[in-house]
Amino acid sequence: MRAITITEPGGPEVLAWSEVAEPAAPGEGEVLIEVAASAVNRADLLQRQGFYDPPPGASPYPGLECSGTVAAVGPGVRGWSVGERVCALLSGGGYAQRVVVPAGQVLPVPAGVSPVEAAALPEVVCTVWSNVFRGDSGLREGQTLLVHGGGSGIGTMAIQLAVARGARVAVTAGSAEKLAVCRELGAQVLVNYREEDFAEVLRGEVDVVLDIMGASYLDRNLRALATGGRIAVIGLQGGRKGELNLGALLAKRATVTATSLRARPAGEKAAIVAAVREEVWPLIEEGRVRPVVDRVLPMSEAGEAHRIVERSGHTGKIILTP
Amino acid sequence: MRAITITEPGGPEVLAWSEVAEPAAPGEGEVLIEVAASAVNRADLLQRQGFYDPPPGASPYPGLECSGTVAAVGPGVRGWSVGERVCALLSGGGYAQRVVVPAGQVLPVPAGVSPVEAAALPEVVCTVWSNVFRGDSGLREGQTLLVHGGGSGIGTMAIQLAVARGARVAVTAGSAEKLAVCRELGAQVLVNYREEDFAEVLRGEVDVVLDIMGASYLDRNLRALATGGRIAVIGLQGGRKGELNLGALLAKRATVTATSLRARPAGEKAAIVAAVREEVWPLIEEGRVRPVVDRVLPMSEAGEAHRIVERSGHTGKIILTP
Repeated sequence: MRAITITEPGGPEVLAWSEVAEPAAPGEGEVLIEVAASAVNRADLLQRQGFYDPPPGASPYPGLECSGTVAAVGPGVRGWSVGERVCALLSGGGYAQRVVVPAGQVLPVPAGVSPVEAAALPEVVCTVWSNVFRGDSGLREGQTLLVHGGGSGIGTMAIQLAVARGARVAVTAGSAEKLAVCRELGAQVLVNYREEDFAEVLRGEVDVVLDIMGASYLDRNLRALATGGRIAVIGLQGGRKGELNLGALLAKRATVTATSLRARPAGEKAAIVAAVREEVWPLIEEGRVRPVVDRVLPMSEAGEAHRIVERSGHTGKIILTP
Repeated sequence: MRAITITEPGGPEVLAWSEVAEPAAPGEGEVLIEVAASAVNRADLLQRQGFYDPPPGASPYPGLECSGTVAAVGPGVRGWSVGERVCALLSGGGYAQRVVVPAGQVLPVPAGVSPVEAAALPEVVCTVWSNVFRGDSGLREGQTLLVHGGGSGIGTMAIQLAVARGARVAVTAGSAEKLAVCRELGAQVLVNYREEDFAEVLRGEVDVVLDIMGASYLDRNLRALATGGRIAVIGLQGGRKGELNLGALLAKRATVTATSLRARPAGEKAAIVAAVREEVWPLIEEGRVRPVVDRVLPMSEAGEAHRIVERSGHTGKIILTP
C-alpha cells in the first residue's frame, strides 16, 4: 500500500507518499480500515519534526484519525462487520491506504455527514469532549467556555458543542475572518488576540479554558477564570514552562490540567469514544454540530497541508484523501 | 461573652481573651452553639497576622471549627435541637464562648469521641475529604497518596482516612518523632524532608499529593506524580508563585488544583459536611479513624498555641477550651 512516510525529521518537504508494507492482519479486538480520508492535526506537524514519536505499538506513519470502510475484523470483534462505513480515532497511521485500529476506537459515520468529511471528526470530538465536558468538572449549561484558536479544527468543534449544550462561548483568533466563522458557529465573545488582551475582556468570567498555548497564556488564562474554574491545556504552542500564581489559583479554587489523547491507553480511548458516540453523535445527526472543513487535498499533498496549518492559514480541518 | 480578639495584626501576643458582645440570635437556618472547645488551624495564624481576613458576614474572631452544645436554633432549622452535642465547621468565631453557624455545617459528636476532642475534627476532615477523596478524581483503593506535613492535624487525618480506604500513604515530615507517629497511623513511605528529596524517593509513583507548601514544592510534586496524578494545594507555606512545567504536566495528563474551604459558599460547605457525615463519621465511630490531639490549652493561652504551631512543635491538633 501507500502511506505518508517521514524521510527524516524536518519541514513539510520530508513527507513522501511512498510504497510501504501492508499492515499486519487485524489481531484480537482489532479492525482493518480501508481509508477514505484522514485529517491533519497539529500533532502530525510535531511528529514530522521529530518532536512527537508515536507511542509504542502505533503505526510509524502520521494521522490520528480516518474515515473509510471496514475491510477485515480480527478475532473477538463485535459490532463491526466488513463493508461498514466508519471513522476512527487512531494512535497513528491515518495518512495511508489502510490502517489497523482497536475496535473500541471505531465510530459509525454519522447520518448526514459524507464518508470523507467524517475523517475530520474523531480526534477533535474526542479531544473536546474529554477535556471540556467529561466528568464532574465538565462544562455545564449556562457556564462560559473560552476557546483559544477558535478557527481551528478543535476550536470550531468546541464552539458548536458548547453552544449545543447551552454554554456561552468566548474565542480568541488572529483574524476578523476567523472570528466571523466563530460567530456564525455561535461564539458570543470574539477577541482578536492581535488587538486585545483576552484576560482584560473576560476577567473572572470563564469557567473552562480550552488552551493550546501553554506557558505564554498561563497567567492570562488564570486571570480570565471565574471561581471554581478550570484551565485544560492541550497544546504548548506558547512554551512548556510558565509561572503559576498558586495564590490566585487558591483564591479562585481553580484547576490547571493538561492532557493528550494519543498517549492514553486503549481502554481510556475506548471509554471516551463510547461517551462521544452517546453524547455527541446525536447532536451531529440532528445537524446541530457539523465538521468544519477548510479543504480536501490528495494525500500526496500532505506537505502543502502541513504548510497551511503551520501558518494557521486554515479555518476548520484539512482533509487528506489517498 | 468572651472571645479571642486580635488587638492589631501581629505576633501571638496580639491575641486577647476579651469581653465582647454576644452574637446575634441565630437567623433563618442557623444554630447557636455554646462552645466546649475550638482547635487551632494554620489559617488562624494568617488571620492574626492580617493576611487572611474573614469572608464577608463571618465572625471577626479566629477559629474555623468548634465543638459544643446547641444553645438555640433559628427558624427553619431541622435536625438539630437545643442541648445536643455537636461539632461544626465555621467561617470564623470558634475562639469564643458562643458562635452562630449555618445548620448545614453542624455535625453530631461521633460516638467514641469526647465532646472536647470533637473540636479537632470538622476542619481537617472536611479539608482532607474535599481535596483528596471527593468526586471522580478522588483517591481510589490501591492508589498512592503523598501527604506533606504528615504530623500536622491535616496530615494525621489524611493518613488515617487514606489507609482506611485502602490506599498506600507516603508522608514527609521534619523529625523522626513525627515520622514515627505517621508510621503508627499507617503511613508506609516515610521521608524526612531535612535528609531526603521526596521527589527522588517517589518519582512517578504518586496519584494524589496533598500539599501545604505551594511554589517551593510545585516542581518536585510534579516529578513525584504518576500518570493521571493530581496535586491538591491547600497551603502556600513555600510561596505563591512557582514555575510549572506544563510539558511534564501534559506528558503525565496531570492536574494542579488549589482550594480553601473557608471561602466556599455555605451551600458547598453543607454538601461537603453531608458527605463527610456519610463517608467519614462511620469510620470514626468504628474506631478506624480518630482525632490526633497534641494538647488541650485554655483559650486564654491561644497565643502560646499559636507559638507552638508557628515552630511546628506539635503533632496533630491543638485544642482550646473557653
